[in-house]
Amino acid sequence: MTTESTFINILRSFATDPAARGLLDDVAVLELGDAALIVTHDMMAEGVHFRSNANPADVAWKLVASNLSDLAAKGATPVGVLLGFMLGDDAWDRAFAAGLEEVLAHYRVALLGGDTVANRGDKRALGLTALGIATHRPVPSRAGAQIGDILYVTGTLGDALAGFELMDAGFDAIGPLAEAFNRPEARLSDGQALAPFVTAMMDVSDGLLLDSERMATASQVGIQIDLACVPLSPLYISYRTDSLESRLQAASWGDDYQLLFTAQPDVTLPVPAIAIGTVYSGGGLTLKDGAGSVKLPPTLGYQHQ
Amino acid sequence: MTTESTFINILRSFATDPAARGLLDDVAVLELGDAALIVTHDMMAEGVHFRSNANPADVAWKLVASNLSDLAAKGATPVGVLLGFMLGDDAWDRAFAAGLEEVLAHYRVALLGGDTVANRGDKRALGLTALGIATHRPVPSRAGAQIGDILYVTGTLGDALAGFELMDAGFDAIGPLAEAFNRPEARLSDGQALAPFVTAMMDVSDGLLLDSERMATASQVGIQIDLACVPLSPLYISYRTDSLESRLQAASWGDDYQLLFTAQPDVTLPVPAIAIGTVYSGGGLTLKDGAGSVKLPPTLGYQHQ
Repeated sequence: MTTESTFINILRSFATDPAARGLLDDVAVLELGDAALIVTHDMMAEGVHFRSNANPADVAWKLVASNLSDLAAKGATPVGVLLGFMLGDDAWDRAFAAGLEEVLAHYRVALLGGDTVANRGDKRALGLTALGIATHRPVPSRAGAQIGDILYVTGTLGDALAGFELMDAGFDAIGPLAEAFNRPEARLSDGQALAPFVTAMMDVSDGLLLDSERMATASQVGIQIDLACVPLSPLYISYRTDSLESRLQAASWGDDYQLLFTAQPDVTLPVPAIAIGTVYSGGGLTLKDGAGSVKLPPTLGYQHQ
Repeated sequence: MTTESTFINILRSFATDPAARGLLDDVAVLELGDAALIVTHDMMAEGVHFRSNANPADVAWKLVASNLSDLAAKGATPVGVLLGFMLGDDAWDRAFAAGLEEVLAHYRVALLGGDTVANRGDKRALGLTALGIATHRPVPSRAGAQIGDILYVTGTLGDALAGFELMDAGFDAIGPLAEAFNRPEARLSDGQALAPFVTAMMDVSDGLLLDSERMATASQVGIQIDLACVPLSPLYISYRTDSLESRLQAASWGDDYQLLFTAQPDVTLPVPAIAIGTVYSGGGLTLKDGAGSVKLPPTLGYQHQ
């Protein structure tokens, strides 16, 4: 099987339009007159992003929220979405549609169109395209981190991991940890407030370490994260203790959809955020734990294969 | 299984933004300052839209061309596409990427972004979002056909059907009929030229009869098609003879991607097109064959189930 990175490298060779941002960002940025249109498309596949017994309304929620999270990281106001849907059994489809209506009403986003196909296989695949308008120019990218900047994250990591593991172990899909996995929040107002103050911004969809490394690569800088500063929720700590190991796991798991950004050290941020690292001259990602250095784990996050 | 129409009816109950056009058009039309952005999303599924042994480059071609055809029917200039791709085996993925590069170069359209997922099932599903800018306002819709208008189609129908059947019978996927199925043309320049002259326009993706009935429903008029006027290619006729039966089949099969439109009878069209019917006061679709009336066949086209 082609890996995601191999395939995207092939696409990158001909995705040369500036609006594509070298396929290094999560979105495309199209300049249309005075406006900058932000467009993103994410897929979710059964057996990869959601389990066959997942609540269809939760699948709809996550499909929308994960795409809107990409818009949030660009400081965009969402305009609407287009759905690519694979028809299956009637009850599932109706529950999905009800969940879709709910999540779109929650975010006040319009369903603009899309397509349905029959499912001739054994697994569902769903796609969503989200469109938004930039509220601040230039539109934040992954590539703007500057030497001397501080690295921030908007909130706790690891809750979605804990929720997934609890459900995987047979616990009911209720409670705040399961909710963190099933119904992540797209931090749209945070992203809009932060956009004028950041040098680089993205969402943490595949894991803090992996996404930070991607930001370092795109920005051609080094990023050091202090694991002692990585915020964990009391629930996550009660579930898994507060150890270096549990911090590494929280930082290597995706699905939290916090915003990850860099800003100059003298900037007063308009919303609460936690400083977790620094940007230095160099390349790639390094870790420390307070005063001590920490080796990078073999897997930094969720890599699609 | 939910049928496509049932599912879309559920979505329609909350897709109330004017840009969604009531989910009755193939595209969304977003007003952004002085520009009208046209957005469409189509999926293709293995076993439904393409066979497992299809040439991956042809799959890429058709995925792009079928989406651009929706833009063509709105008179839009394409801006770019986002791809939703399910990774499979290396050779297939690389051949698909090469085909994608070829078709995007052919239409001079940019790859702007997208997403890849691992395939945990047994069938591929692919999605494409295409973005374009309207060249004429108002943007043609399905809903504008007026009583007294003439119904036109831009070229021959049935070639894709013949090509599919030849390949299905084991003939090589070469020659103009197979090409018509594998590599349809998006009639972008025709659509742009026609947009100022039409009252309604769409592409024939699911079959002339089905798509004409949809136009009649959206426009709240009746449409009568004269099957004797439906254009067939010499190759189609040599493959299948020129009979009422073969005309009905050509008119009930999709994948030709001709433009179907209505215009007032006194309008001089800027590009060649064939008059095949009339718009009358009433509802739905009726057929005739020269002077004789023809009953509607039980299946008007390709209905996704």
